[in-house]
Amino acid sequence: MNRSVRILGLDPGLQHTGWGLVESTGSRLRHLGDGVVSTKADLPLAERLCIIHRALSALIEEHRPDEAAVEHTYVNKNPGAALKLGQARGVVLLAPALLGVVVAEYQAMEIKRAVVGTGHADKIQVQDMVRRLLPGAVIKRADAADALAIAICHANHRSTRIALARGYAPA
Amino acid sequence: MNRSVRILGLDPGLQHTGWGLVESTGSRLRHLGDGVVSTKADLPLAERLCIIHRALSALIEEHRPDEAAVEHTYVNKNPGAALKLGQARGVVLLAPALLGVVVAEYQAMEIKRAVVGTGHADKIQVQDMVRRLLPGAVIKRADAADALAIAICHANHRSTRIALARGYAPA
Repeated sequence: MNRSVRILGLDPGLQHTGWGLVESTGSRLRHLGDGVVSTKADLPLAERLCIIHRALSALIEEHRPDEAAVEHTYVNKNPGAALKLGQARGVVLLAPALLGVVVAEYQAMEIKRAVVGTGHADKIQVQDMVRRLLPGAVIKRADAADALAIAICHANHRSTRIALARGYAPA
Repeated sequence: MNRSVRILGLDPGLQHTGWGLVESTGSRLRHLGDGVVSTKADLPLAERLCIIHRALSALIEEHRPDEAAVEHTYVNKNPGAALKLGQARGVVLLAPALLGVVVAEYQAMEIKRAVVGTGHADKIQVQDMVRRLLPGAVIKRADAADALAIAICHANHRSTRIALARGYAPA
């Protein structure tokens, strides 16, 4: 029998950090929750990072995910924007790790491929597909849908790894 | 009488994060300690961030600084390097803030001006001047000297602010 695993997907951003929690049992997925942690741009940077850290730590302590996943951000924008995103990303990676939750990282293309089937899908296609894969879930925010996509990607990779370990070829 | 203030300077880096603690009493400075938190490049990113967070949190709890200061990093390198530095920087800013220590940020030029007297000093000049301003201190590592420079800069800005508040013109 397949054990259920709770996976927390995280989409880092200084202004909006999306989170999405799914339960994965074999190839079945269940939506457990999602949301966005927002911080106001006029607060000092260290304070904004505290808000993100505290919100994610509380979330992890409440929902006890077994594993977490974050997009391995590829930045082709200016270095200033990359630094800003990096600051949020560092704090987002830290929160689960400090609580003993292993954090996996996936490239954007892997996430698109896992959710839509092609690495060249656009953001809207990914978000639409997340809603189809998690029927019944009301996902209001784009950042939350992105975080759920990351969680779904990790769920797929996990079940492929388990199937491979059992000697089955992946679908 | 001038109150003594403990200032923790932090120089973030994923591989090496420098720290330096000084006590500032009026215009007098005293070296209290310095060091470097290093993480191995072959560890997972989240684990490296945990090591930095835990080391800085322990440091802050042990030495109880009143204020902290971090360089406001200007990045003109590639976005990948900026993202990497940002991740460490986010975690470095978070540690004091979570423990209630206010974190000030200074531009590299402000730090150079505060320590050497000119914003165009090079790294070696800054490190030499840190050693002169803190006589008796044995500062082995460049990252620690950089962190002490940030702490000294914050000490100078503090005393200027206090002097201005008292109606004296800055030197």
